[in-house]
Amino acid sequence: MNERLEKIGTNGRFMFLAYDQGLEHGPTDFNDINIDPEHIMRIALEGKYSAVILQKGLALKYWKGTPYEKKVPLIVKINGKSSAWKGEAYSPQNTSVDFAHSLGASAVGYTIYLGSEYEYKMFSEFGKIVEDAHRLGMPAIAWVYPRGKYVEKDDSPEITAYAARIALELGADMAKIKYCGSTESFARAVKAAGKMRVVLSGGNKNTPEGFYQVVQSVLDAGGAGVAVGRNVWQSDDPLKVSQGLHKVVFGK
Amino acid sequence: MNERLEKIGTNGRFMFLAYDQGLEHGPTDFNDINIDPEHIMRIALEGKYSAVILQKGLALKYWKGTPYEKKVPLIVKINGKSSAWKGEAYSPQNTSVDFAHSLGASAVGYTIYLGSEYEYKMFSEFGKIVEDAHRLGMPAIAWVYPRGKYVEKDDSPEITAYAARIALELGADMAKIKYCGSTESFARAVKAAGKMRVVLSGGNKNTPEGFYQVVQSVLDAGGAGVAVGRNVWQSDDPLKVSQGLHKVVFGK
Amino acid sequence: MNERLEKIGTNGRFMFLAYDQGLEHGPTDFNDINIDPEHIMRIALEGKYSAVILQKGLALKYWKGTPYEKKVPLIVKINGKSSAWKGEAYSPQNTSVDFAHSLGASAVGYTIYLGSEYEYKMFSEFGKIVEDAHRLGMPAIAWVYPRGKYVEKDDSPEITAYAARIALELGADMAKIKYCGSTESFARAVKAAGKMRVVLSGGNKNTPEGFYQVVQSVLDAGGAGVAVGRNVWQSDDPLKVSQGLHKVVFGK
Amino acid sequence: MNERLEKIGTNGRFMFLAYDQGLEHGPTDFNDINIDPEHIMRIALEGKYSAVILQKGLALKYWKGTPYEKKVPLIVKINGKSSAWKGEAYSPQNTSVDFAHSLGASAVGYTIYLGSEYEYKMFSEFGKIVEDAHRLGMPAIAWVYPRGKYVEKDDSPEITAYAARIALELGADMAKIKYCGSTESFARAVKAAGKMRVVLSGGNKNTPEGFYQVVQSVLDAGGAGVAVGRNVWQSDDPLKVSQGLHKVVFGK
Amino acid sequence: MNERLEKIGTNGRFMFLAYDQGLEHGPTDFNDINIDPEHIMRIALEGKYSAVILQKGLALKYWKGTPYEKKVPLIVKINGKSSAWKGEAYSPQNTSVDFAHSLGASAVGYTIYLGSEYEYKMFSEFGKIVEDAHRLGMPAIAWVYPRGKYVEKDDSPEITAYAARIALELGADMAKIKYCGSTESFARAVKAAGKMRVVLSGGNKNTPEGFYQVVQSVLDAGGAGVAVGRNVWQSDDPLKVSQGLHKVVFGK
Repeated sequence: MNERLEKIGTNGRFMFLAYDQGLEHGPTDFNDINIDPEHIMRIALEGKYSAVILQKGLALKYWKGTPYEKKVPLIVKINGKSSAWKGEAYSPQNTSVDFAHSLGASAVGYTIYLGSEYEYKMFSEFGKIVEDAHRLGMPAIAWVYPRGKYVEKDDSPEITAYAARIALELGADMAKIKYCGSTESFARAVKAAGKMRVVLSGGNKNTPEGFYQVVQSVLDAGGAGVAVGRNVWQSDDPLKVSQGLHKVVFGK
Repeated sequence: MNERLEKIGTNGRFMFLAYDQGLEHGPTDFNDINIDPEHIMRIALEGKYSAVILQKGLALKYWKGTPYEKKVPLIVKINGKSSAWKGEAYSPQNTSVDFAHSLGASAVGYTIYLGSEYEYKMFSEFGKIVEDAHRLGMPAIAWVYPRGKYVEKDDSPEITAYAARIALELGADMAKIKYCGSTESFARAVKAAGKMRVVLSGGNKNTPEGFYQVVQSVLDAGGAGVAVGRNVWQSDDPLKVSQGLHKVVFGK
Repeated sequence: MNERLEKIGTNGRFMFLAYDQGLEHGPTDFNDINIDPEHIMRIALEGKYSAVILQKGLALKYWKGTPYEKKVPLIVKINGKSSAWKGEAYSPQNTSVDFAHSLGASAVGYTIYLGSEYEYKMFSEFGKIVEDAHRLGMPAIAWVYPRGKYVEKDDSPEITAYAARIALELGADMAKIKYCGSTESFARAVKAAGKMRVVLSGGNKNTPEGFYQVVQSVLDAGGAGVAVGRNVWQSDDPLKVSQGLHKVVFGK
Repeated sequence: MNERLEKIGTNGRFMFLAYDQGLEHGPTDFNDINIDPEHIMRIALEGKYSAVILQKGLALKYWKGTPYEKKVPLIVKINGKSSAWKGEAYSPQNTSVDFAHSLGASAVGYTIYLGSEYEYKMFSEFGKIVEDAHRLGMPAIAWVYPRGKYVEKDDSPEITAYAARIALELGADMAKIKYCGSTESFARAVKAAGKMRVVLSGGNKNTPEGFYQVVQSVLDAGGAGVAVGRNVWQSDDPLKVSQGLHKVVFGK
Repeated sequence: MNERLEKIGTNGRFMFLAYDQGLEHGPTDFNDINIDPEHIMRIALEGKYSAVILQKGLALKYWKGTPYEKKVPLIVKINGKSSAWKGEAYSPQNTSVDFAHSLGASAVGYTIYLGSEYEYKMFSEFGKIVEDAHRLGMPAIAWVYPRGKYVEKDDSPEITAYAARIALELGADMAKIKYCGSTESFARAVKAAGKMRVVLSGGNKNTPEGFYQVVQSVLDAGGAGVAVGRNVWQSDDPLKVSQGLHKVVFGK
């Protein structure tokens, strides 16, 4: 396996807890419990996640200098946009790779909106991020989401495989992409990704069992794991869902 | 408490005197007395404010090298726009963090227009500002104001909580946001802000008593204080209002 | 007085000869005599101006290395635009502060179009210019002209006071603004400018006597002087007008 | 011959295997075999190609540190865009020349869309790339494709000769251009290219024999070879087509 | 005379051979002979031109390291655009001044489209170029061409004088401008240019005699020479036209 990924996975499998929704969607995603990043950090630790995904701000206040720093590897999401702007999608870099590294991050994540009018800015920024990250020995993870006026369906098998391939071509160590409906079609995306690892972006709300099935499908398709957020911390019993997920991903 | 904030607060409470309206609104906000920054500096000192908020220009001429330099901590507002341009809002950085630091500032402030077409520029600039400020041991304070064609109401509880959260996610040490109507709804914004401090942006004109009630509501909601401008220096007796405010914020 | 201004004024009064119209308006402003920068330099010297205002190109060929270099202080105007483009106003920096300093300039000047769609670029550029100039011990002078689709009247008392204040807030050592109709209203602009010096932008064509009256009004209002161009070098007797002006500004 | 080109050609002839379609077009170009970059690397080696053309991502995972590194020279394509955005064409740089050099690349490639609204960005970027590449002793290859609302036909003889000339003028060591219909018209493009080498961009689907004829026409016209992709790895027998091509290009 | 210009002129007169049309217009300007830069270099040498004007690419392949390097001074044109894009004119810098200097150039040239929506970019870029060039002891030559939606006539006497003045104001050592119809009107442009040298941009097709008359008119008007391209190398006998021109410009 890509050595840079060893710190954030086990036996080539990855189970990430994503918690950048406060920037992307706002508190509308949260209730009085999961609005608290501390609560999420506990889930990340007790749920035995491979890593937690945070924006710089949360990393500074809820990870750096806390007991979690030694126990839960950190992926810093270094770009983001709000849902308050609804025009053509661009997610600008807000954190330098060097800052993420100095914080102690084990990887950086960056969203690319494939098909956006501003795709070119993100291709260019991400290209530089890969070079910066590799210089520092860190993996660069690309979230690739089809978006924009020419994208009719953002989770078709074809565009999903394209999303995976874009990440590979641009030098990502891993891509986080959406599910495209079946094991067969996801396998095609995994194939398009070649030696690069692919994890599921577990965005849409689902029942635990429904979600396990999607993750199993991703693994069956050759995917390397999942980055989950709302399906865990919006559930009635996050730890139980985490355990269920752990069993699917790691077989125990 | 965040150590970087210690120089501009007392016991975790903050009472700032804001005076950047000359750039943002122009002299239309001023009468013949409060148009003079010296007058404001006296209020800041005698009113026992935690800090005064000035653009670089006023800091250079009314704080640096004056007796106030040792007595009233300075927050330099490092971006701004005029009210003469009425299109989509963008407030560009006009002062480097290093310059603010060399001036002797205890913190820097930066406005983000959440939802603006140029939100991405401000997210990106502010991200860099946080890194620069922390390198120099200074706190970065985000003014977060919802604005733009997709923002229907800029002080709804939902968007206010989002504003607070944006600042937290981007690494701000403190957010300055508007009141959203009730202690309960503001408490939600404070909750969204987590370990980051929240102060009220005391913009709208009010009676002293009405204003004290809003500030009390903010404190009851878990807010850490207030940045006040016009409600003090446009009042008939700024020192009296300052004393009243001091009592609300610091209990004495 | 601001020490940085001492080289370009006497007893806190300033009388500048402006000659950047070749860039801003083109030769349409010139006749066969005043089209020659050498002619203007003679007026600057013999008319006892505090300084001459030139773009880099004229400074290189008509001031640097000439006898004027030791006798007439130089203000380099470091941005400019032509009148051939008639869309939304932006005047980009064309000379670095360091270059102006290496030339031997005593100050730099920069135009800000308050209210333009590109106001943000000029706020940002000028903010950096102030920092560069002060590092080198030079004053930064802001020409502030209201302009753009939301500006109905560019010389109303209100917008004129705003123009002066913008310069103060952004860190200018001096503002050059238009006359707004009366001593009373100009006094308001001077008040808005606080400790920053204000000089009249003597743009509109006038009779010598009419112009002296405007300058006297500016001085009565607390203004510190005038930057004059066409009203001098387009007159029938530039030296006579200069002497008249000198008497108004310096009392002798 | 241009010494910088010696590592990627033989006797002034060039036969490149292009495999950047994963970024430009997406997996729609691939079947289950040629979707695998490893498969392409085998073709590149066994088909005796002068070099393989890859984006940074594929170079990192399928060339660097593999046996191919010593056997197949690498051209890194340092810009690219997806087909998901269908507006005016701009292909931004995503890899620095220094990174490509540190990878071990023998050359860099960059696409210019001649006639695009963003042509100016690509002229400017490519100009810098030539300087960076020559400093490091590497050739810079320009893909020049006419595109945009003012371009009626992208493979007319006139625009094809223009494409070749653009590359020469901007300092490219080699241009990759489309076929324009006849030996005579392509000879004109070669002539326009002067001392710079020209290779065919073998994009359109063709039969092996039809493709050989086009390549022969290019060589007859004075062209220096071909960069082929889909006509080889989409064929039923890529090695056989490669051998046929080798015979045409190198005469054996 | 400006010392920086001594390498590219004789007795204050200049006769340049311009050959950047391959980028600006494309091969449509060329026949089978003049499409070859080598042919142009011979004309430059044998026609005793003061210097040849080339884009970086031609300079690299047809001047650097050739016998011409010692015999024909080089002016590198460091910006350019194609005629394939027909929208608002912007000609971006594609070569750094330092690269041109390291090549051995005696001067750099840059086109400014006066009146274009992108005029501001060119003013800003050229301002920096002047500073870079002077640091290296090289002259900076401005091609100033009126262009854009507000420019009704690009060769009126008024706009021509403005073009010359723009170059002077921005610090150019020399301007290359179009003829505006008469010796009298061109003399006005020369006057507007002051101490800066002005050469004719010999663009429009003319008979040799007609062209000599225009050049003579330019010299009579105080112009310093001519930059000629098509009127020489598109003529039936380029050397004869060159000799005729030499006689007009240098009197022998």
